[in-house]
Amino acid sequence: EKNDKAADFANYFCTYAFLYHQKEMLSDRVRMEAYYNSVFKNAHHFQGKVVLDVGTGSGILAIWAAQAGARRVYAVEYTDMAKHAAKLVAANKMDHIVEVIQGSVEEIDLPEKVDIIISEWMGYFLLRESMLDSVLVARDKWLKPGGAMYPSHARMWLAPIKSGMGEHKMQDYEASMNDWVHFTQNTRHAFGVDMSTLSNSYREEQVKYFLQTSLWQSLYPSQVVGQPALVKEIDCLTVTLDDVKAVSANFQLPVFDGETRVSGFAGWFDVRFQGSPSQAADETVELTTAPSINDTTHWGQQVFLLHPPLHVRDNDVVHGSILMTRSKTNHRLMDVVIKHAIGKGAETASAFHIE
Amino acid sequence: EKNDKAADFANYFCTYAFLYHQKEMLSDRVRMEAYYNSVFKNAHHFQGKVVLDVGTGSGILAIWAAQAGARRVYAVEYTDMAKHAAKLVAANKMDHIVEVIQGSVEEIDLPEKVDIIISEWMGYFLLRESMLDSVLVARDKWLKPGGAMYPSHARMWLAPIKSGMGEHKMQDYEASMNDWVHFTQNTRHAFGVDMSTLSNSYREEQVKYFLQTSLWQSLYPSQVVGQPALVKEIDCLTVTLDDVKAVSANFQLPVFDGETRVSGFAGWFDVRFQGSPSQAADETVELTTAPSINDTTHWGQQVFLLHPPLHVRDNDVVHGSILMTRSKTNHRLMDVVIKHAIGKGAETASAFHIE
Ligand SMILES: Nc1ncnc2c1ncn2[C@@H]1O[C@H](CSCC[C@H](N)C(=O)O)[C@@H](O)[C@H]1O
Ligand SMILES: Nc1ncnc2c1ncn2[C@@H]1O[C@H](CSCC[C@H](N)C(=O)O)[C@@H](O)[C@H]1O
Repeated sequence: EKNDKAADFANYFCTYAFLYHQKEMLSDRVRMEAYYNSVFKNAHHFQGKVVLDVGTGSGILAIWAAQAGARRVYAVEYTDMAKHAAKLVAANKMDHIVEVIQGSVEEIDLPEKVDIIISEWMGYFLLRESMLDSVLVARDKWLKPGGAMYPSHARMWLAPIKSGMGEHKMQDYEASMNDWVHFTQNTRHAFGVDMSTLSNSYREEQVKYFLQTSLWQSLYPSQVVGQPALVKEIDCLTVTLDDVKAVSANFQLPVFDGETRVSGFAGWFDVRFQGSPSQAADETVELTTAPSINDTTHWGQQVFLLHPPLHVRDNDVVHGSILMTRSKTNHRLMDVVIKHAIGKGAETASAFHIE
Repeated sequence: EKNDKAADFANYFCTYAFLYHQKEMLSDRVRMEAYYNSVFKNAHHFQGKVVLDVGTGSGILAIWAAQAGARRVYAVEYTDMAKHAAKLVAANKMDHIVEVIQGSVEEIDLPEKVDIIISEWMGYFLLRESMLDSVLVARDKWLKPGGAMYPSHARMWLAPIKSGMGEHKMQDYEASMNDWVHFTQNTRHAFGVDMSTLSNSYREEQVKYFLQTSLWQSLYPSQVVGQPALVKEIDCLTVTLDDVKAVSANFQLPVFDGETRVSGFAGWFDVRFQGSPSQAADETVELTTAPSINDTTHWGQQVFLLHPPLHVRDNDVVHGSILMTRSKTNHRLMDVVIKHAIGKGAETASAFHIE
């Protein structure tokens, strides 16, 4: 248990310690505008309030909360990025309001409870990284009754798509297996060892790598060939760890007129900033990571390709189910099983990993 | 201490658990031929002997030792690759001789001491990965007095080189810093936060990434522009952990006639298989990772680029020193400081990381 945590921390946090990586997030205009607007269009909700920023990174959200009028902001960050955050806070003359605390939010201590928790915890397809867990721990420990979560709500979507990547990945996979055949022949001839007993294991490894790993893609809206389905809704104020440990949903995905091929599915998410039930935001801000021409984000979409692709006819409905669980060896990565059928056809199950 | 180990294991071993990665090593013809010849050209030294293979991976070296006539071979592997190794041993009908033991060689128990330790422990520039540490633990615990190490000797070399990568990396670095300037301007205008206080920290990060990280390169022999210097010699039978924890040497590198520019230095290694003092190999086999046209290896060379490059004149001697230590945050990675001067000129120090 303790060892698992050490390994997890070593793996998970290392990229966040680099300004280069924080800059990538800070350069995501869609992300930045959504959080900026969520704070400043509701500035009066921040005035005089105590705020906790879970995972402050560079400190950006904490500084905005202070600029919007918060009385006190606790900005918690596990990595050494905390040192840069403290510097940034001071340079922007907010060190009388923002206190940067280096540590994991699960373990740090605050001198008081807070009115608002703000956090940018979303990973690929919302839940990758499982950072929401930390936000929920912080909420249950430090948020005052009646307090607000920023963002307040999150949703996950799944849609049928078309893509050339399916054929691509299949070709890469086949090339890799051909290469294995040459390799085993050569190892036998040149070095007297027959490797062919490992061929099935190698195939499994390559299938997993090329065909069962979801892909990061920034899709064009025109690649979405059917109605997206809502597969999960989260109220950040009330959701529990159990609610997000496994996500399962049935879906109906009517395919648009004239579309004949479904290469697979794309998953994305949105979050909304609506304040709290007792203090609703005046203006709801939404951050969506749906396929877009101009408003793309660094999250892109997660694509789950089917091998072979589906052939559909006008007005066919692709229906089925999705089950997303945490990978057994790393709780920050995800295993996904998508079952699908067309109309009354037989159901097919496909397994994927979000790496 | 225990946490560090958990994190180390999680990070270090993960790639070796993939057949794909083992296959890359098994496809390195130069590496394979050297180990193959070291065993079979000295087969009578293996006959009737007890052998320990430290880090057997796919099991290849253990199978060869058995084929050469060993009485018993203990094949130790930490990762799940051990399961594939056991299968490979059985398929090649050596399971009556080779016993695959899954575990770290530091912790496993053997029923007897061994006559020969064979291991392929070498990392980039010989010592990256620090796997030699594990071989030394195994040697001190399990090798009989008078036993043999395969390989028996190792050497590290440093040479002046020319390369176009220096300019390349400098351009990438400059582009990255220009981008940072635009980023800080944009963040100030669009989002009201001044990031410029982090510019020096960002610069440091980018200098480290672009200019102070050694590069894997498979150099042409013609890129070597001066005499290589021997910077370390290791007798695997007697070397201690302290001997390899830090490597330091002075060097003299006469630059070849007509060469006017030194872009930096390249480091590589060789190992030799000479049996033991009491039972010398009949035929010494050498595995070198020096720049080569036909006999390239997956190790390539580690290139340390100077910014700016050195300008030398006919018959100039580049002299200086190298100090290689283990990175404080990960003992499997290396910090390198190279000091150099031309003739009686002033000395310049350059710091690098082998990542
Ligand atoms: N349990 C935890 N405790 C403290 N920090 C955490 C954490 N889990 C993740 N983090 C930090 O949370 C950050 C998420 S990235 C978001 C950074 C910043 N809030 C921004 O919006 O730009 C990372 O810097 C990561 O190191
Ligand atoms: N301390 C340790 N205990 C057991 N195995 C180890 C080890 N340190 C490294 N290894 C294993 O040693 C292997 C080195 S790669 C060499 C594999 C094989 N002997 C071949 O020559 O093809 C890896 O599979 C790694 O997992």
